Amino acid sequence: MTEFEIKYRDCMGRICNFRTRHGIVETPNLLPVINPNKILITSKELKEKFRAQMIITNSYIIYKNKDLREKALEVGLHNLLEFDGPIMTDSGTFQSYVYGKVDVDSIEIVKFQRDIGSDIGTILDVFTLPNEDYETAKKNVEETVRRAEESVKFKDKMLLACTIQGSVYPKLRERCAREISKLDSDFYPIGGVVPLMENQQYDKLAEVIISSKMGLDPSKPVHLFGAGHPIIFPLAVALGCDFFDSSAYAKYADDDRLIMPWGTLKLDELDELPCTCPICSEYTAKELRSMDKKVRFRLLAEHNLYVSFNEIKKIKHAIKDGNLWELVERKAVSNPYLMDALRVLERKKYKKWFELFESVSKKRALFYTGRHTIHRPIIYRYHNRLFNRYRVEYSKAVILPESKKPFSRYYKHILQKLPSEVGLIVNSKLGPVPIELDEMYPIAQSIMPDKVDRETTLICRKVLKKFLDRLEVVSIEDGFESIGSLNKKSGNNFDLRRIRATVCMQFGKNADKALLKGKIDIIKSKSTGKIRNIYSNNKHILSMRASDGLFTLKIAGARRLHSFFKFPSLRVVVRNECRDFILDGKNVFSKFVIDCDPQLRPLDECLIVDEDDNLLAVGRCLLNRIEMLSFNYGIAVKTRESLS
Amino acid sequence: MTEFEIKYRDCMGRICNFRTRHGIVETPNLLPVINPNKILITSKELKEKFRAQMIITNSYIIYKNKDLREKALEVGLHNLLEFDGPIMTDSGTFQSYVYGKVDVDSIEIVKFQRDIGSDIGTILDVFTLPNEDYETAKKNVEETVRRAEESVKFKDKMLLACTIQGSVYPKLRERCAREISKLDSDFYPIGGVVPLMENQQYDKLAEVIISSKMGLDPSKPVHLFGAGHPIIFPLAVALGCDFFDSSAYAKYADDDRLIMPWGTLKLDELDELPCTCPICSEYTAKELRSMDKKVRFRLLAEHNLYVSFNEIKKIKHAIKDGNLWELVERKAVSNPYLMDALRVLERKKYKKWFELFESVSKKRALFYTGRHTIHRPIIYRYHNRLFNRYRVEYSKAVILPESKKPFSRYYKHILQKLPSEVGLIVNSKLGPVPIELDEMYPIAQSIMPDKVDRETTLICRKVLKKFLDRLEVVSIEDGFESIGSLNKKSGNNFDLRRIRATVCMQFGKNADKALLKGKIDIIKSKSTGKIRNIYSNNKHILSMRASDGLFTLKIAGARRLHSFFKFPSLRVVVRNECRDFILDGKNVFSKFVIDCDPQLRPLDECLIVDEDDNLLAVGRCLLNRIEMLSFNYGIAVKTRESLS
Repeated sequence: MTEFEIKYRDCMGRICNFRTRHGIVETPNLLPVINPNKILITSKELKEKFRAQMIITNSYIIYKNKDLREKALEVGLHNLLEFDGPIMTDSGTFQSYVYGKVDVDSIEIVKFQRDIGSDIGTILDVFTLPNEDYETAKKNVEETVRRAEESVKFKDKMLLACTIQGSVYPKLRERCAREISKLDSDFYPIGGVVPLMENQQYDKLAEVIISSKMGLDPSKPVHLFGAGHPIIFPLAVALGCDFFDSSAYAKYADDDRLIMPWGTLKLDELDELPCTCPICSEYTAKELRSMDKKVRFRLLAEHNLYVSFNEIKKIKHAIKDGNLWELVERKAVSNPYLMDALRVLERKKYKKWFELFESVSKKRALFYTGRHTIHRPIIYRYHNRLFNRYRVEYSKAVILPESKKPFSRYYKHILQKLPSEVGLIVNSKLGPVPIELDEMYPIAQSIMPDKVDRETTLICRKVLKKFLDRLEVVSIEDGFESIGSLNKKSGNNFDLRRIRATVCMQFGKNADKALLKGKIDIIKSKSTGKIRNIYSNNKHILSMRASDGLFTLKIAGARRLHSFFKFPSLRVVVRNECRDFILDGKNVFSKFVIDCDPQLRPLDECLIVDEDDNLLAVGRCLLNRIEMLSFNYGIAVKTRESLS
Repeated sequence: MTEFEIKYRDCMGRICNFRTRHGIVETPNLLPVINPNKILITSKELKEKFRAQMIITNSYIIYKNKDLREKALEVGLHNLLEFDGPIMTDSGTFQSYVYGKVDVDSIEIVKFQRDIGSDIGTILDVFTLPNEDYETAKKNVEETVRRAEESVKFKDKMLLACTIQGSVYPKLRERCAREISKLDSDFYPIGGVVPLMENQQYDKLAEVIISSKMGLDPSKPVHLFGAGHPIIFPLAVALGCDFFDSSAYAKYADDDRLIMPWGTLKLDELDELPCTCPICSEYTAKELRSMDKKVRFRLLAEHNLYVSFNEIKKIKHAIKDGNLWELVERKAVSNPYLMDALRVLERKKYKKWFELFESVSKKRALFYTGRHTIHRPIIYRYHNRLFNRYRVEYSKAVILPESKKPFSRYYKHILQKLPSEVGLIVNSKLGPVPIELDEMYPIAQSIMPDKVDRETTLICRKVLKKFLDRLEVVSIEDGFESIGSLNKKSGNNFDLRRIRATVCMQFGKNADKALLKGKIDIIKSKSTGKIRNIYSNNKHILSMRASDGLFTLKIAGARRLHSFFKFPSLRVVVRNECRDFILDGKNVFSKFVIDCDPQLRPLDECLIVDEDDNLLAVGRCLLNRIEMLSFNYGIAVKTRESLS
């Protein structure tokens, strides 16, 4: 069984630990391809110099060469390649694409991979071209699934990679993924994508990845087979790919080309080497050109590996900081075809899917990068919740232009005179913001330019219009006096309004009615003046985090939500057998989760209950429902406070 | 006199050779700051490891320290710092900003810099804050100019840097620049910008640079004083800055921060080092953190230098490839405040200024990066010339959607049936393209996404509307037949139409009437079918370049343009004394140019004439008029063919 565990996440991307018989690998990761026939950079160097954790080689090449085959069977793959970390093997599928066919049986090659001790073997799937007609692509999917079904029987202790095919047909990809997910497969390569990358059809590539992911069991690693150029790494990781392989480092080097984060450069056309890597820091372009081909080949391959591995590091850094979407958007600016891929992500059905996996809060502020920013799942969610969760408690609204943040401080003078039947709506660059929501992530935590692009403006205008639908807009120019003169002066406490609104956005419509009962005491930070703790009838029910303006739920608050909201709302259901563990304050492990509110998102506060819906504890989700029900490893919920 | 010579150019940026008494420096360049009191990285290392060509130190610090002062006066600055390349010195102005004042006389510090052998000394200008009121800023400009006037008298063989002040007032900056340009100054620092950078007021910074540049003599180097973070390098170079200095490399390192191309990272917050530099390739973040502060300080400083110098390399590479605007736009995506700076560049008066310096053709295709692309000077020019130079020879127009390129091949079937009174206009993502202009740079040479942003769409729509103003639009859906049925079938030769249109766009309205007389023979490439050479009445007048679809002018063509267009159109006027040189085929050096058509742009074809307007040769401009009349070094026009 695949041991695969999420440690950090952002977008559909994730940093996971993946256990193999030769050690744990951290994803996302890049597997350098080793050609056993001509080793350019030894596996030892790959490990020591580039910190490669896992490599990949082609079992078909070994199988076809009598000497290599016999040696591999005798001493094992790891001794053959002199690598003590995990080794993945490919099966010859790509050769079948390049040469038309391979002369090996699909079972035989799996057995061979197993027998030489591959950590992850790959089935002989049927490579299907992007321009293949639907019927052939469908037939190939069926054959691929059939081979996978047969192959899993022979894997023994080897992990088996079952490749997803389906050409560019989203339905076929998803169907193939679903069929493969039913099998005892351990690893999911997405195959048949090399031609899409070669032709820079990144929009199609994005669709292929998303539709494959939508059908796949999320608890197993996904490998974008044959994708070795870092230009697509951020997008692919953001869409849920965990592994890449690179033969590109050698192929491009052989062709005197340098892989760069934004594309590829020909050495012949360079005066400067616009790169800081040890190779480019030591040599000039001229020096490299004057070298012996063999020496240069090696040095360029090293450059290519430095750059490729560094892009993985950048991605990991972005996942931890919660700004992988920004990395994706920034990368898209280096290639117009990548921008076409962003357009694919903006389709509603995909946005809906991404939103499921989007954390409710992030470590860093949201940075605007251009027209795609407004399409990010976190904004999509904010707009949705504004209509589905936020309760409009006023009949009139004043629209204010975006100001310095926080809006409520900047517009304090207006706020103070505000009667309760008038709402203040800031027409922000991310959409309408009822002023009491101004400190909630990502409203306060966003860095925007003075002027945004027109698409963003139009989308925000549309959302604002819809929001104002049943409200009477009163003008502030027309006289703030006209508002002031509205007879019932605000006895309304703005802090309470903020708390009520945030509670609804965070826990669901009317959650304030469950939580805020009787006497409400608000404790504020002495230094910042921000809301810290909320007591209702002397019970500490909520704490507000200064960093993201969202609430941490206390057990007293959890009790109220539990009795107010019906099952399965806000719940994560654990097996009765772990009741005592949870009551003891232990975290909830995925494998013990038997159900979960489909509305819960990563980093949402949740109620931990047993099979009989007895409240056990309150915690913070690390996974969404789909993940909790799939993963067998790792923590699903961090328990914060238990009932005991 | 400053020896400063343009070798390559793009936007307002340029790669120049700058001669000092200690060797030639290539710009753009970065001067690491050396603090003579505490040397972190020796000048030798700076030179050998980072290929620093020039360094900068503070003469005021040396002056204030008795030991250093005496040593500097005794052995000279270069021995003091053990650096045999050029050294620039600052004067204490920045200290006056930090500490409120300095106790040295403005003449004395210039003399001191001269006496210790500084290659480039700096006047003691009056630092003026961005939030200074206009009157004070004006007074400070006057005092700065007065001090500069005085100081130049004492510079002797030292080059003297006279700093531009003027706070954030464009008029004051431009005025200060004009006044300083009148003096015998050799180098132009733009001062008082550090607070703008610290507060990320990049929009103001852009305005300060542009307005300073508009007043400055273009033939001398410009230094953005105190700008050490690479996030602003591409923008600053694109606007015409040649030098930067960095104390940031040490300052940030001391603070455990890593300079990155897109911003700054705190070592404490990093698990991964997302950088390929030798330091980040050798150590992990954890290893660096566990080191002794002193060792770490040095290593982080090295990282900061690797990254900073690499950004200069990237910029040079972009200038040579002709895609510096793209680099600027891409960089802007990493910081929303940089996007605000792009908005400044879009103001009409600035666009007009940039257009003067924009080459007519580039080595690489234009890449769309987002909403700013449509505002690039080359597009601005294309739209302008469409109205001012292109002649509409038809009364009806069919509008076609953007297709694959070249449009004329894709729409060949329509083109073939086209009557001469109907124009085919492609509604492209860069604006309307009469189909006969489809091979001209940057129309064919542009990479666009499938769908562009709305701002671009709206601008293009507006330009199209204006273009169609006096045309009757006929529909192709309505039946291409309706066009086919227009009685006069096209006897019109499309090649000729392309030649006429391109000639007008390139050389001016009605240039076709001058060039194309009598019998026209068109020689095409046998392999590509593209137009190569054009003969008119058996004279070879033009050749078309396959790379950019523009014409190379032959001497026979030049004669016709010369007699058709009145002086000074298309002319570069050289002193009579170099008549024989030019007739001999030698290039035109700037110092011999006495006038130039203000309509000529870099890489434009031009007529080289003597003071009496006798045609001497035909050539290709490397500079525009303003530059030709200012520069004393370098080639103004590459002579292609002379009359002799």
